[in-house]
Amino acid sequence: MSTIEMIESAATRLAGHARRTPMLSSPFLDEIAGRGILVKPECLQHTGSFKFRGAWSALTALGPKTRARGVLAYSSGNHAQGIALAAKRLGAPAVILMPKDAPKLKIDNTRALGADVRLFDRETDDRDALGAALAQEHGLTLVKPFDEPFVIAGQGTTGLEIAAQASQLGVTLGDVLIPCGGGGLTSGIALALNARAPRLRARPVEPDGFDDVRQSQLSGRIEKNERTSGNICDAILTPSPGSITFPIIKELCGPGIAVSEDQALHAMALAFTRLKLVLEPGGAVALAAALFHPAKIEHGPVVVVASGGNVDAAVFRTALDRFAE
Amino acid sequence: MSTIEMIESAATRLAGHARRTPMLSSPFLDEIAGRGILVKPECLQHTGSFKFRGAWSALTALGPKTRARGVLAYSSGNHAQGIALAAKRLGAPAVILMPKDAPKLKIDNTRALGADVRLFDRETDDRDALGAALAQEHGLTLVKPFDEPFVIAGQGTTGLEIAAQASQLGVTLGDVLIPCGGGGLTSGIALALNARAPRLRARPVEPDGFDDVRQSQLSGRIEKNERTSGNICDAILTPSPGSITFPIIKELCGPGIAVSEDQALHAMALAFTRLKLVLEPGGAVALAAALFHPAKIEHGPVVVVASGGNVDAAVFRTALDRFAE
Repeated sequence: MSTIEMIESAATRLAGHARRTPMLSSPFLDEIAGRGILVKPECLQHTGSFKFRGAWSALTALGPKTRARGVLAYSSGNHAQGIALAAKRLGAPAVILMPKDAPKLKIDNTRALGADVRLFDRETDDRDALGAALAQEHGLTLVKPFDEPFVIAGQGTTGLEIAAQASQLGVTLGDVLIPCGGGGLTSGIALALNARAPRLRARPVEPDGFDDVRQSQLSGRIEKNERTSGNICDAILTPSPGSITFPIIKELCGPGIAVSEDQALHAMALAFTRLKLVLEPGGAVALAAALFHPAKIEHGPVVVVASGGNVDAAVFRTALDRFAE
Repeated sequence: MSTIEMIESAATRLAGHARRTPMLSSPFLDEIAGRGILVKPECLQHTGSFKFRGAWSALTALGPKTRARGVLAYSSGNHAQGIALAAKRLGAPAVILMPKDAPKLKIDNTRALGADVRLFDRETDDRDALGAALAQEHGLTLVKPFDEPFVIAGQGTTGLEIAAQASQLGVTLGDVLIPCGGGGLTSGIALALNARAPRLRARPVEPDGFDDVRQSQLSGRIEKNERTSGNICDAILTPSPGSITFPIIKELCGPGIAVSEDQALHAMALAFTRLKLVLEPGGAVALAAALFHPAKIEHGPVVVVASGGNVDAAVFRTALDRFAE
């Protein structure tokens, strides 16, 4: 179980290595939403997503001998890049299992950051069996993408920053909307807010049809998405929340929100025009919820996490073609 | 004449109103350039460019009665938006003269920020005469876009931040490349660096064929571009450096660098892929110089200012179509 102490400790290990991202806003977005929107742009984090935080936290928590043998990760791309860069900077070998249909940019970047990338087929290969064999063969330590206390603690450092930055801007009461896949970022931020800004409430945001976390919140137990692919928000199509992340979300988070693919693309176009940020679809869902689901949000100002920006140019062009003014 | 004391005083007035933008980097950009590149993203400043700094500095330096009568500015767009937002927040009326061929996004934004926008024809209208008539009629105070000590002092706050941030990252010796139109940002940063980080040297970067500042540095007197339009870098096509900015640049700056339109577009595409930033062509020229003119840069790491991101979607698409991987 992750705790605020683990998050504070991760923040110490991350200091000078991860970026403290700023807090942005635009009067034009506020007008659309009918309330103030504060945007925490984790697309500006190293490797283009918040995942570097959890990767650095997990790798620096390993003993030096274990780390030197190397780490193993599986990921559709953002965790992969986070692990690859953290491993490179810490001098550890990294083997990464990535699905064949992951965005080309994410596969290329992970390779370019020095990781040994192995591709698998989401539908036919048994990723866990492949991983277990690789780990045994090379003595690698598996770093899970979200259901891992040190990863959750690393992602939670985003929540410490939000608590401090929102308070500086006079926002101490309201919802904090977070793009949610397996729940590592959401649970980490929820823990941090609970301890440091208890009137700010974390809420998961997912794509329509892939709202396993919201469904799990509603039923009170871990639910699974029917499909595992077929949505533009590739970064957050995790089948179900984790056995560590879900209890935290269940206890601490407000209700989940689901947004459409079009809303994610529209939010990307508005982030382009109004914030000068490049967001990927999965990284834009929380902004989409703030802009296009105002009735589901409580209180005045809202904080949204823009969790990643690793998008191929073709997808970005689609967002501009369809929604940029 | 602007001084470091004026810049420090502007920094005090800007605190809590302008954003302290972060310092970004990417190992992929470093590899292309063959050296470390630190990017100061002023596209993330309010209104999408550094111009808000100078606008806020100038407007807060006015007496309350003068300010209440209103301000006048002329600008192709970024100064316009900076003045419009600063005036709105300070409760002052703003009248802005903009060329008809300014990017639509910039004209629309300036209007949406509450300014009274009047369009003029660059080739046939006498902008200064139009402005003088308006100022007299309404009792407005002209805020020049660059050749104005309080504006230079405001832009110079960027240099204070660069000095502190670069030093924190271990960079105390090297070139600081700055997109340069009339020289307000360049001269302000040069003054700040000269006082706070004297081994960092400011250098202006301009578009090929619009390198009036570089030509002026070479001849030692103010030179003028032959053309006033016809380049994609609309934000920095100023005909010549100012009578206040040029002596500062002449004394303190290293040699100017000129880049092609293609290089600016290529730098925009790389900022998209590697930094998750939206840059406009004129805001990308310093990054272009760092990436594509490495032999003209001295020492190891280089700092570049990414000065603005107010670009129409069509131009951004062109950059992606031609240069994104």
